[in-house]
Amino acid sequence: MKIIIDAMGGDNAPQAPIEGGVKAAKELGVDIVFVGKTDIIENELKKHVYPSEKISIAHAATLISNHEEPAKAVRSKKDSSIVVAANMLKNGEGDVLLSMGNTGALLAAGLLIVGRIKGVLRPALATLLPSARGAKMLIDAGANTNCKPENLVQFGIMGSIYMKGVMEVEKPTVGLMSNGEEEGKGDELTKETFPLMKQAPLNFIGNIEGRDVMEGTADVMVCDGFVGNVILKTVEGMGSVVSRELKTMFMGSLLTKLGALFVMNGIKGFRKKMDYREYGGAPLLGTKKPVIKGHGSSDAKAVYNAVRQAKRFVESGIIDEIAKNTN
Amino acid sequence: MKIIIDAMGGDNAPQAPIEGGVKAAKELGVDIVFVGKTDIIENELKKHVYPSEKISIAHAATLISNHEEPAKAVRSKKDSSIVVAANMLKNGEGDVLLSMGNTGALLAAGLLIVGRIKGVLRPALATLLPSARGAKMLIDAGANTNCKPENLVQFGIMGSIYMKGVMEVEKPTVGLMSNGEEEGKGDELTKETFPLMKQAPLNFIGNIEGRDVMEGTADVMVCDGFVGNVILKTVEGMGSVVSRELKTMFMGSLLTKLGALFVMNGIKGFRKKMDYREYGGAPLLGTKKPVIKGHGSSDAKAVYNAVRQAKRFVESGIIDEIAKNTN
Repeated sequence: MKIIIDAMGGDNAPQAPIEGGVKAAKELGVDIVFVGKTDIIENELKKHVYPSEKISIAHAATLISNHEEPAKAVRSKKDSSIVVAANMLKNGEGDVLLSMGNTGALLAAGLLIVGRIKGVLRPALATLLPSARGAKMLIDAGANTNCKPENLVQFGIMGSIYMKGVMEVEKPTVGLMSNGEEEGKGDELTKETFPLMKQAPLNFIGNIEGRDVMEGTADVMVCDGFVGNVILKTVEGMGSVVSRELKTMFMGSLLTKLGALFVMNGIKGFRKKMDYREYGGAPLLGTKKPVIKGHGSSDAKAVYNAVRQAKRFVESGIIDEIAKNTN
Repeated sequence: MKIIIDAMGGDNAPQAPIEGGVKAAKELGVDIVFVGKTDIIENELKKHVYPSEKISIAHAATLISNHEEPAKAVRSKKDSSIVVAANMLKNGEGDVLLSMGNTGALLAAGLLIVGRIKGVLRPALATLLPSARGAKMLIDAGANTNCKPENLVQFGIMGSIYMKGVMEVEKPTVGLMSNGEEEGKGDELTKETFPLMKQAPLNFIGNIEGRDVMEGTADVMVCDGFVGNVILKTVEGMGSVVSRELKTMFMGSLLTKLGALFVMNGIKGFRKKMDYREYGGAPLLGTKKPVIKGHGSSDAKAVYNAVRQAKRFVESGIIDEIAKNTN
């Protein structure tokens, strides 16, 4: 299996993608092809010892930064790392694409270059979020700001297939994100979606609310990409503020530092549970071949976990499963 | 000043509303009228020592529970505590109404009985949320699930007036909740709202994202009530999960318990900063007289703080200010 990694994307590129990719090549039995400027990648690779037969480079002269207009950049920058990587995926020069770069550009490349599965109206970005009951999926986490009821139903179907095939959840529960649990609650979109969800081949548990995100009430939380993006960033933002506050609290005095020592293991366990890096990246569901968006701030460990997830994504065969269930 | 308290609403009624109300009568120099079943209120009042001239009872034979359809219940249950209380407010038998009960019913009573300020298209529920930079306002937190751009602009105006008049923030900053900071980001609603916000008499700082909720980037965060409700409940849910996890962590062993002792003051400070009870209730903005929704799970302390806030709301004179600025 060959993993295509955009070596130029993300806050810590090229260091993190390359370190994480090299580790994956050594430990996960996968081949890696790094896409980006050859000289930069070669320089970075010199820092590592690795099995050279498992690692290769595909040259891309430029890159798409986070500040560029995604669809326009994908159309015009044919030699950017994301576009080159997406074309390689399309042409079978790799089995799955992982990028930590510009989210919009990766989505556009997925849509315009890799292409939609026939029957899928809108591919969606699916993020795994930590919760009190383990990793749960939020779909759509930002690919489609304006959705129709049929889109949301497909998000539920694709998300269920992923949670079953890749995350090994038997009969994943699906909840529709709303402003109240009762069937009558919601905005126009979710009110129209509710009856369709009930009829769809889903383990639908009805409306869920914001409080269910961290409680982990549903395995798959369905919403449009605007609401999903707001939820995702609210949770991330709250996580980083809480982390920071706890740190300040523990570093306050000699006594609190001593206290912190005693609770260190617990804190580590808690942080690990809430750490996005443990959960790999966000799969784009609905494209003909697997595409994964790694977190922009991914370090090498997060990249490594995203590669592990990419491998499971390919092995699971869920793309065929999605194609069968969205026709 | 007379505060009308719905003694029957909330998870801890009648104990919490009455204990909190009595404390407020003693310490804040306000008169309190408790609305609900006379015998129940009298029984509860027996537990307290209080200045009897500052406390009175208005009888309401029934109540609206959390499971009733709000608008219908308000129309049909004329003798419910919320409806009796709203009529008292309308008729000048009190200066402000505070209820911890059914949110929808309170909103409906505010709209149907107390009435909109002329010029206000839609009253909105405004919640104060803790953040790294202190209390910030989320408006609309759930009154209006489907909004138009003009509604959001008015939410920004009303929220700014409240933050200035009641929370004493000079030139409150206003952010439009979206899925990205750039001007072009958003769904149909927020894209149409953005240019109107720019023209409005607001200290508008542009789009904000979910991560800005806890960072406290804007004093007033504007969104429709569907998105606002999802944000509010996501934050609340995350707060309670984090609290629970930390508790489990600290109570894990003798050693961690000892450690927890050393950091106890810090934890208390952190919890206080993140505690909704410190922030009072959620004002309904846009009605002719002040209405405040206290948190359903309010204890006596939260009720007391909500009364303190209700008093400031009345004294601030911001209802006239809103009327002047929404014509």
